[in-house]
Amino acid sequence: MGKKFKPLTPKYPHMLHGGDYNPDQWIDYPEIIEKDIELMKKAHINNVSLGIFSWAHLEPKKDVFEFEWLDKVIEKLYEAGIYINLATPSGARPHWLADEYPEVLRVDEKGVRAHFGFRHNHCMTSPVYRERVRIINTKLAQRYGKHPAVIMWHISNEYGGECHCPLCQQAFRDYLKEKYVTVEKMNHAWWARFWSHTYSSFDEVESPGAISETAINGLWLDWWRFTTYQTTDFMKNEIAAVKAVNPEIPVTTNMMGLYDGLCYPKLAKEIDFVSWDSYPYWHVPNENVKEAYTESFTHDYIRCLKMKPFILMESTTGTVNWRPVSKMKKPGMHRLAILNAIGHGAESGLYFQIRQSRGSAEKMHSAVISHTGTENTRVFKEVSELGADMKKISDLIYGSDNPAAVAIIYDKESKWALNQSNGPRNCGLDYDGLCTQYYKYFWQNGIGVDVLDSSADFKDYKIVIAPMLYMYHNDIQDKLRKYVEAGGILLSTAFSGVADENDLCFLGEATDEKLSDVFGMWVEEIDALFEEEFNETFFGNDTYKLRELCEVIHTTTAETLAVYGNDYYKDFPVITKNKYGKGIAYHIAANCEIQLIEKMCSLLAEEAKITGILGNVSIPDGIGINYRENEAKRYIFVGNFSDKEKTVSLSKTYTNILNDGVVFDDVKLEPYGIVILEEDV
Amino acid sequence: MGKKFKPLTPKYPHMLHGGDYNPDQWIDYPEIIEKDIELMKKAHINNVSLGIFSWAHLEPKKDVFEFEWLDKVIEKLYEAGIYINLATPSGARPHWLADEYPEVLRVDEKGVRAHFGFRHNHCMTSPVYRERVRIINTKLAQRYGKHPAVIMWHISNEYGGECHCPLCQQAFRDYLKEKYVTVEKMNHAWWARFWSHTYSSFDEVESPGAISETAINGLWLDWWRFTTYQTTDFMKNEIAAVKAVNPEIPVTTNMMGLYDGLCYPKLAKEIDFVSWDSYPYWHVPNENVKEAYTESFTHDYIRCLKMKPFILMESTTGTVNWRPVSKMKKPGMHRLAILNAIGHGAESGLYFQIRQSRGSAEKMHSAVISHTGTENTRVFKEVSELGADMKKISDLIYGSDNPAAVAIIYDKESKWALNQSNGPRNCGLDYDGLCTQYYKYFWQNGIGVDVLDSSADFKDYKIVIAPMLYMYHNDIQDKLRKYVEAGGILLSTAFSGVADENDLCFLGEATDEKLSDVFGMWVEEIDALFEEEFNETFFGNDTYKLRELCEVIHTTTAETLAVYGNDYYKDFPVITKNKYGKGIAYHIAANCEIQLIEKMCSLLAEEAKITGILGNVSIPDGIGINYRENEAKRYIFVGNFSDKEKTVSLSKTYTNILNDGVVFDDVKLEPYGIVILEEDV
Amino acid sequence: MGKKFKPLTPKYPHMLHGGDYNPDQWIDYPEIIEKDIELMKKAHINNVSLGIFSWAHLEPKKDVFEFEWLDKVIEKLYEAGIYINLATPSGARPHWLADEYPEVLRVDEKGVRAHFGFRHNHCMTSPVYRERVRIINTKLAQRYGKHPAVIMWHISNEYGGECHCPLCQQAFRDYLKEKYVTVEKMNHAWWARFWSHTYSSFDEVESPGAISETAINGLWLDWWRFTTYQTTDFMKNEIAAVKAVNPEIPVTTNMMGLYDGLCYPKLAKEIDFVSWDSYPYWHVPNENVKEAYTESFTHDYIRCLKMKPFILMESTTGTVNWRPVSKMKKPGMHRLAILNAIGHGAESGLYFQIRQSRGSAEKMHSAVISHTGTENTRVFKEVSELGADMKKISDLIYGSDNPAAVAIIYDKESKWALNQSNGPRNCGLDYDGLCTQYYKYFWQNGIGVDVLDSSADFKDYKIVIAPMLYMYHNDIQDKLRKYVEAGGILLSTAFSGVADENDLCFLGEATDEKLSDVFGMWVEEIDALFEEEFNETFFGNDTYKLRELCEVIHTTTAETLAVYGNDYYKDFPVITKNKYGKGIAYHIAANCEIQLIEKMCSLLAEEAKITGILGNVSIPDGIGINYRENEAKRYIFVGNFSDKEKTVSLSKTYTNILNDGVVFDDVKLEPYGIVILEEDV
Repeated sequence: MGKKFKPLTPKYPHMLHGGDYNPDQWIDYPEIIEKDIELMKKAHINNVSLGIFSWAHLEPKKDVFEFEWLDKVIEKLYEAGIYINLATPSGARPHWLADEYPEVLRVDEKGVRAHFGFRHNHCMTSPVYRERVRIINTKLAQRYGKHPAVIMWHISNEYGGECHCPLCQQAFRDYLKEKYVTVEKMNHAWWARFWSHTYSSFDEVESPGAISETAINGLWLDWWRFTTYQTTDFMKNEIAAVKAVNPEIPVTTNMMGLYDGLCYPKLAKEIDFVSWDSYPYWHVPNENVKEAYTESFTHDYIRCLKMKPFILMESTTGTVNWRPVSKMKKPGMHRLAILNAIGHGAESGLYFQIRQSRGSAEKMHSAVISHTGTENTRVFKEVSELGADMKKISDLIYGSDNPAAVAIIYDKESKWALNQSNGPRNCGLDYDGLCTQYYKYFWQNGIGVDVLDSSADFKDYKIVIAPMLYMYHNDIQDKLRKYVEAGGILLSTAFSGVADENDLCFLGEATDEKLSDVFGMWVEEIDALFEEEFNETFFGNDTYKLRELCEVIHTTTAETLAVYGNDYYKDFPVITKNKYGKGIAYHIAANCEIQLIEKMCSLLAEEAKITGILGNVSIPDGIGINYRENEAKRYIFVGNFSDKEKTVSLSKTYTNILNDGVVFDDVKLEPYGIVILEEDV
Repeated sequence: MGKKFKPLTPKYPHMLHGGDYNPDQWIDYPEIIEKDIELMKKAHINNVSLGIFSWAHLEPKKDVFEFEWLDKVIEKLYEAGIYINLATPSGARPHWLADEYPEVLRVDEKGVRAHFGFRHNHCMTSPVYRERVRIINTKLAQRYGKHPAVIMWHISNEYGGECHCPLCQQAFRDYLKEKYVTVEKMNHAWWARFWSHTYSSFDEVESPGAISETAINGLWLDWWRFTTYQTTDFMKNEIAAVKAVNPEIPVTTNMMGLYDGLCYPKLAKEIDFVSWDSYPYWHVPNENVKEAYTESFTHDYIRCLKMKPFILMESTTGTVNWRPVSKMKKPGMHRLAILNAIGHGAESGLYFQIRQSRGSAEKMHSAVISHTGTENTRVFKEVSELGADMKKISDLIYGSDNPAAVAIIYDKESKWALNQSNGPRNCGLDYDGLCTQYYKYFWQNGIGVDVLDSSADFKDYKIVIAPMLYMYHNDIQDKLRKYVEAGGILLSTAFSGVADENDLCFLGEATDEKLSDVFGMWVEEIDALFEEEFNETFFGNDTYKLRELCEVIHTTTAETLAVYGNDYYKDFPVITKNKYGKGIAYHIAANCEIQLIEKMCSLLAEEAKITGILGNVSIPDGIGINYRENEAKRYIFVGNFSDKEKTVSLSKTYTNILNDGVVFDDVKLEPYGIVILEEDV
Repeated sequence: MGKKFKPLTPKYPHMLHGGDYNPDQWIDYPEIIEKDIELMKKAHINNVSLGIFSWAHLEPKKDVFEFEWLDKVIEKLYEAGIYINLATPSGARPHWLADEYPEVLRVDEKGVRAHFGFRHNHCMTSPVYRERVRIINTKLAQRYGKHPAVIMWHISNEYGGECHCPLCQQAFRDYLKEKYVTVEKMNHAWWARFWSHTYSSFDEVESPGAISETAINGLWLDWWRFTTYQTTDFMKNEIAAVKAVNPEIPVTTNMMGLYDGLCYPKLAKEIDFVSWDSYPYWHVPNENVKEAYTESFTHDYIRCLKMKPFILMESTTGTVNWRPVSKMKKPGMHRLAILNAIGHGAESGLYFQIRQSRGSAEKMHSAVISHTGTENTRVFKEVSELGADMKKISDLIYGSDNPAAVAIIYDKESKWALNQSNGPRNCGLDYDGLCTQYYKYFWQNGIGVDVLDSSADFKDYKIVIAPMLYMYHNDIQDKLRKYVEAGGILLSTAFSGVADENDLCFLGEATDEKLSDVFGMWVEEIDALFEEEFNETFFGNDTYKLRELCEVIHTTTAETLAVYGNDYYKDFPVITKNKYGKGIAYHIAANCEIQLIEKMCSLLAEEAKITGILGNVSIPDGIGINYRENEAKRYIFVGNFSDKEKTVSLSKTYTNILNDGVVFDDVKLEPYGIVILEEDV
């Protein structure tokens, strides 16, 4: 039985349908704005994001504000029943601001300050920039913060990037001083005696980069941590300005999925709910299913940032225009993608963009309303039909929960360390790919998964999977030890538990720091394979390919489930199982093909006595299943992400809420088809 | 019946044979210069280009001039019957000039000023540089402008590149102010409200580039237009200096074929005739025929810049030395390439270079006279034999015309916009490749083609082909509409008529701005395919592959000739035909394999009742045919660009003017063989 | 009968076993240092390199020195019987030094000064840096220069790179002024009249690079020569400081094999013996044998720098951590690699590193003692066993000679010119690959080879091979002419003798400057082939593939042994043989597959009446044989570098000194197995 969450947007507690709208580009074309609103109504659009890039039009000169045009647009939209996500405009500043205060522009790692241009190109530290943002945010809040149409603050846009300016350098030094107190502690954490790179004072520290220090792993980690810290601090400054006027309006900021530049779990603490911009690459030949489970994994990562529903803030109605090859979404794909997001906890289907711009960098990006300006397009029709569907399901599903018995640890700081550290394989260890491959089995079979970083609490899960968790920090050893002791099932993979939070390697053979007690084994050495080089293992009734990394391990208390088939470590253990307390800890000492990963996951599920939400049926490849629950009902989303018709067998009768039909026996799903099955909890 | 053109070089009205000669490198080796001239005579050389890189030797110190060495060389050459193309030396400046006036050196897009070095590295705006160029040009003109040996001015060398220095930035702003008058107009043309990139004054404008504005398409277009404008202006300054002394000597500048950095139609207006430097990549396995029609297309593009014969200013006698793999020209290839140029309107066969330099960057580049310094080389012998041939044909062909009934629109500004605009396929849309593929059929079959940009007049052609003409400007819609109305045959392809001269997309569905009336259809959406992804269409009796771009179109008045075979737009039209006025407009909605292009071209020719110049015979692949005419005679160049022997059947009897033989029935052409057939007009 | 060399390290005249040790990183962990020394003893380690990166710990503030920690470490090591290579710490400077004197940091070719960071990042010219290095070196020498444990000075670390700062620019100008005296001579040597790049004074010269002069080949050559000169000069300054205290301690610096940044023959003159750091890429699929002969070739190149034994200063015990894929050494590979080094003249097996660092850029690099800190690893065991072997063979082999009857010319300056010159193939002419392919036959068959540059004397060799010797300098024409005249056998290959020491091409057809007299032929032109394009030749009983470069040559006195099979130069000579004086000069006019190279080498050996050291037996592929001799005994190292068992037939009986067994008939070698066979000389 799932929880019922409070509405994310209390002023309009419904599924949101709409997206980014830029009337500022059409101020000279009032007839187009009129037509747009008319078409929005036809498309069942009830929500738009406004003002994301409007600063130059809201404050065309310093301290000269022009709100009339926006007043008019907001009124017209509100009259049409369309609610507003009002953006703070810090993502792109006016020319005059950069001209008068060059310090607001970013400096790159070589010390070169960018000129005006680009989009996101502001220093996160600059006091001037923070002050100008505070002023415009306050003005916006004063004018619109209590308007009935405004249901949330869209704080800035896709925060990201870093700045190496003198102000940021100094803030970085202050951050380090606060963290380490003495330079000796910092030197030790960074192992800075290496290559005589010892610091004699905090003043000597510079950000890492192409023409400065690159060899110190700990410096890189702290620099990225600082960037998250400073970006969060900048965002807090923005939020304070709007909350000061009306604390009732919830704030969010639109994140970028698995983006590596920021540690989102930290950012998420400061906002009321999470939102994100999703641009999967559909229809790459033979990659659609992989893209689908990666996308679903990301929804779950985003959802778990606050463990509640979220907003899909941007997505595309058709093609993007910035890929090498920008493919159209084939019929059905759009509906499938949006309903899949909802199945994972989204309370919206929002798009970039309502109307195509006429010029500049994004003019070829698809929109609800294309350059034709009419409703006579396939895209418009698909969006409208989906709008009707969303209206239908909103009352049933809005605010419901996504229960999960499985946790996958996806840890951004560990990924930073893994990628930055020179190790056995510098040509690529696909951390995201590995984590999502462990997700696939559960996704296909309708077993809920939470995606969490190592700061989370794992005690209530039945299965915890920690793929390639290179860095052990956040007391993860303690937490996992207690979890297994108490009966949990844990799985780790090659190249885990190598280093601590400073990327200092753990010393010793079989030590608790590396969880050797829990896994009952220790790692002696690690071999690396070339792209087309494989080892193999025989497990169950099949032989599987092993790749990339092969640990040579020694068991202490663990049982060996499978061994290497080749090379000098032939017959050494590759899959081990260790009973520890009331639980079990598995380890796979090599990277491997996905078939072995799926096999392992099915074994874990069996061990944990978990079955898929559709019960004891076999689910064909290409299908992804997820579900939401409230106190009374469960809604199961069964989607076909393949380009072939698929049949899913059912073991009982459900209602398909999209067409109000009753479903039993088999569900036939056309390519990109989806059903939402209702059952009592 | 063709026109008879006035001689390009009235002082020596003959086919020119020779090339770049750099005696400055051999001043200390007078015996080598003597020997060179002796060998030139043996090779039937009657023309050399002098002084291209001589500034440091002509003006070794500021205002100190040394002409004696050049006097001597010119006298000796003139005595030997060798005429001079005298260069202005602005392409490479002396060290003292850069040392005293650093402003003459270019600044890159990141604001870094180049040091002395490279070759073409001067600011086009610098008043100092213009003044120093004016002085040296005037001195040269005063000394040699009336010398009987000097038959043309070779203005600078291969103008190109761009400069981002403060002087150029200011000139760019002035250019924009003149063009737009108000900043509001510029903002609208650039759609600069996008991302708040609105300008509040012209002073805020900077050139686009890696660390400044990149998102505004219109800014890029205007920057490139400005670069052409400023380069042309620089050239005009050079020309004025030499014309002031003797306006009788014609001026030219050597262009670089399909070079994208400049809009040559604008540059061409300011010179007396066009010349160009041609370096095709012969003998790439399986690519020779493609290289041949691309080269021939380029000759026609160059010829059409002034619609009259041109000078082939540079080409190579053997290998170049700057390619990844620099292959020798195989026996016959050199003769074939030069005679092919003449067939397309060249009045010369000139080479870089007469003698190999001994050191520095081009020492391995082939020459008439190699490091051996003798006549005992294959290259020398081939050049000499060709010189004899050219002498033979000069009186017959010199000044004759290249008639054409077909026009292909090749528009540089449209190409700029196409490549710069983020669109459905950013990994490559080969505009040049597509235009030349449409050229191939006519080239193979001996049907004359003019290659023109959209500023031209098309009314006298029977067929106009406009491949992927992304930008409609220069009133092209009007011109093409009237052309078809009056009975013309027009063909367009996918991704045409998308945007106007500012790269602003046309709005609306089926609109005249997009020529929807003429083509009888409109485009709803455009899908992109990966490199190895194909759709297909059945047309005539064959199935053809479609690739890269697939428009989903709706016919209004057009007839559907062929439909897509696959994907969600299966059975949607892909080839359409619309009768409009007295003419016909075809559209191919997808890129496709060349076989379909050739099929379409044959269909157009049939419709227009055009046959090849050899009449109703089938021409084998690998053969290229072109012809020149005067009032009385026609000269048909039939070349074999393949490495296999080919036979061309004739329907009548001709004279082969190269060997004075009579040809009838079949012509057997060995690999790289060529014949020139004479007939009465 | 071989020479007996004086010990490289007279204070400890034995094979050295050990490597780099960095106790500075573990100052706060005294128990780890204790444990390390205990483990070193177990591993038969008798030598460590100390202090390479210790400057920040030896001189934490300017003129404040701390030696106590190092005193203690040296005492403890000495007590344990472990001798010291004491490093001067100039390879990495302390923070304070860079902060106070930014001039010590390098400037790149674009004029950007590096920040503190990296490792080797100091200006070779800076007087301040030289002075600070002199002071710390003097302090070290005063404190440890007479310590009984210190057996050599390890001067700096892996000198390399270049600096474009104003001080270096000025030093470069001074260097040129000294070399050329007049600017006219420099202009001529650089052929600087080309492109008007003539210099009017030495003051105008700048280093070549991305934003300055790139077109002048001679400038590049002189810049690289200057870099070698200035690095050598810097090193001499370092050496002077330590020799001033105790001239008895030998000095060396660790080189980097075939590193192209320095001309090692020049550097080598200033040190007492040569040492190098070897990091072959073992176990790349199908590349191990190639890697093995390349590694052996490099050992011989290093040995010949001073024509005496050398020190292997660094190598790895297992994996490195900076390759795309860092593979473990498979069992046996480490022993094979180190004994192979000894077979080529090494007097050591030293490793980077004794203990893995815990953090920073090299923490994953393998070591004798891994993060586990124990002896329970395969690597530790293999190192220990090898230590025992080395102890056993030290007395027998130490100081013995590597006799050679074959010389291969490997000339760094010629390689610089070859790679820098724009020529027929700019996508790659693998000079190192070609030279090592000519080495392979001799290596496999146990025929000693000296690897020398063109400054060497060749008169005592039976065979001299000069692969692709593009540049003829150091009077090589004279030396080779006299060598052949006196009965020597010489072989050259395509693209040889093209240019002189300034990269000025030789003029004329068949000239003595190009050794046309000796080879009896001259080159008319040179064709280039694409990667997958081949010509062929029939020679002996087989057809061989020709590739990359095909010279079209004309014989004068030479006999043609084989001709081209295809293309327009079909039937032109490709292998020629010319009797000259009492000797023979062969030329192969094209690059070719290694099978033809091996065939040619066997022909040369036959002609020279040289057989392999094991006599008239056939050696299987994958085996490499080399040997050392003293006055009485010869030690033949027979190694199996393949992953298959191999059998080598013997024609007589030997003692295998590794296991004291007697060997006769067949030696079976497991993968990576090696035997050392003793026989009387």
